[in-house]
Amino acid sequence: MRLVTIGTSAGPRAASVVTDAEGTDRVVELADAAADLVAILGDPDLLAAVRAETDAHDRARLPRLDDADLLAPVVPGKILCLGYNYRGHVPDGVDPTANDPEWPDVFVKTPNTLAGPCDAVVIPPGATDVDYEGEVAIVIGRRAQRVSLEDALEHVGGYTILNDVSDRAWQRRQSQWALGKCSDGFAPLGPWVVTPDEVPDPQDLLVEVVRDGVVTVSQSTSTTIFSVAFVIHHLSQVLTLEPGDIVSTGTPQKLSDAQAVHRPLADGDAVTVRVSRLGELTTRFVAAQEAAA
Amino acid sequence: MRLVTIGTSAGPRAASVVTDAEGTDRVVELADAAADLVAILGDPDLLAAVRAETDAHDRARLPRLDDADLLAPVVPGKILCLGYNYRGHVPDGVDPTANDPEWPDVFVKTPNTLAGPCDAVVIPPGATDVDYEGEVAIVIGRRAQRVSLEDALEHVGGYTILNDVSDRAWQRRQSQWALGKCSDGFAPLGPWVVTPDEVPDPQDLLVEVVRDGVVTVSQSTSTTIFSVAFVIHHLSQVLTLEPGDIVSTGTPQKLSDAQAVHRPLADGDAVTVRVSRLGELTTRFVAAQEAAA
Repeated sequence: MRLVTIGTSAGPRAASVVTDAEGTDRVVELADAAADLVAILGDPDLLAAVRAETDAHDRARLPRLDDADLLAPVVPGKILCLGYNYRGHVPDGVDPTANDPEWPDVFVKTPNTLAGPCDAVVIPPGATDVDYEGEVAIVIGRRAQRVSLEDALEHVGGYTILNDVSDRAWQRRQSQWALGKCSDGFAPLGPWVVTPDEVPDPQDLLVEVVRDGVVTVSQSTSTTIFSVAFVIHHLSQVLTLEPGDIVSTGTPQKLSDAQAVHRPLADGDAVTVRVSRLGELTTRFVAAQEAAA
Repeated sequence: MRLVTIGTSAGPRAASVVTDAEGTDRVVELADAAADLVAILGDPDLLAAVRAETDAHDRARLPRLDDADLLAPVVPGKILCLGYNYRGHVPDGVDPTANDPEWPDVFVKTPNTLAGPCDAVVIPPGATDVDYEGEVAIVIGRRAQRVSLEDALEHVGGYTILNDVSDRAWQRRQSQWALGKCSDGFAPLGPWVVTPDEVPDPQDLLVEVVRDGVVTVSQSTSTTIFSVAFVIHHLSQVLTLEPGDIVSTGTPQKLSDAQAVHRPLADGDAVTVRVSRLGELTTRFVAAQEAAA
């Protein structure tokens, strides 16, 4: 099932998404008891009720998703991100795991980075090297504190897409990446959360990025160093993951052709991150209106 | 004025702190209109009303601060911290600014790190190298977005103390420090927020740490590389600081004698961070109850 959060006159509300006979996505606005997407993800009974509610409708009569005001599907308490987590291509005969780090490199994006799937990202005034990173993001469904590797996936509420927008100039200026990662709106998220039953193997998803009509990233999560299960297990040894928290699993490197012609994001650019089973997240980039400063 | 947040049967509530004729700290529980400490810090009229309310009481009859349930004074949306920000001692004739970095090194502590001034810090299971860092923390009073250096201090709502508890083993394992900084409860904060009128020069505060009765850190904020004003100005170019956000200004190095005999924090240790004009924050450290895992 796909779940979104939509803006309504009564505030944010969870909705499920279904596709009608013509292939159009439509939304089922959920009842008060299921208004909070995070609560649904952590409660199997509520999730079952939402499924039943969703199936009870005549799809052709439902409102169109395109007409809905899509918000970030969850408002995470914390957004934890992985640095280097995809192996590069190596020649035949070379062990692709030879350069694997022992532990994931983890950093934080602050709450001001969160953006909805329809929000444009404002390129901060003076920023000269803003870049995209298309990533599979885990949405925590159940609190995770020192969970075993075996039990880790039980704490996944679902999956979504995060664009880990990064200002490379700031990222290079210090040892710590925070200022390169934490500008307002630098974490577009969505468009929906896909429940784990539709993602039977999170290590078998194709992550692609399309910029200006060109595929610049294309790599499977089968090539990650640290699996979804390991990452949850690992992080939960150090801190407590709460329902709604986002753990973003890192980005594949750009394809070499794309890297060769890469230029920083500029006003008017659009970047689409698409992931098999998870859909796609398109983000527009716009120049800051200096006058608003 | 000193402002605290206390736990009451009706939930968290702001209170002001006064000292009676005998030198005992007492609290004035504030009215509903001033129940939120962050709101007070950002509103000069409300702050004036709180001062008047505070002065209207017979101090001797007020409840004692020691009997109050002190919570973290604010619940910050984000906690931004500075790495290296105090100059080391250099011999006469050597320019102390010679090794200054051009920009502060900024990292993030996640919301799960927040702890109140009376909370013990649990040393995570398996952690072998937990350390303290006594710091002056800025509490943002007014939203700061691309503010000038000249205007930066107008966005300070007050000052408090933060112990940037750090697991050095995790901090060393990756390029990014998050896992060394973000264990649950690793940011004790408080005990109170001191309003800026009582801190005429934030670059003239003595920061000390006392461990086991020994002063292990003692250095003035006059030796910081980046001033409070600069840090707010600088951060606000990259991201928006919101009321209640915490910006912690880095820790002085341990005194060389203390560094020589330093050992990781262990069950039963207590660490006091004291800062002139800001008071002191004492934190107990306790071993994790493995059975609770």
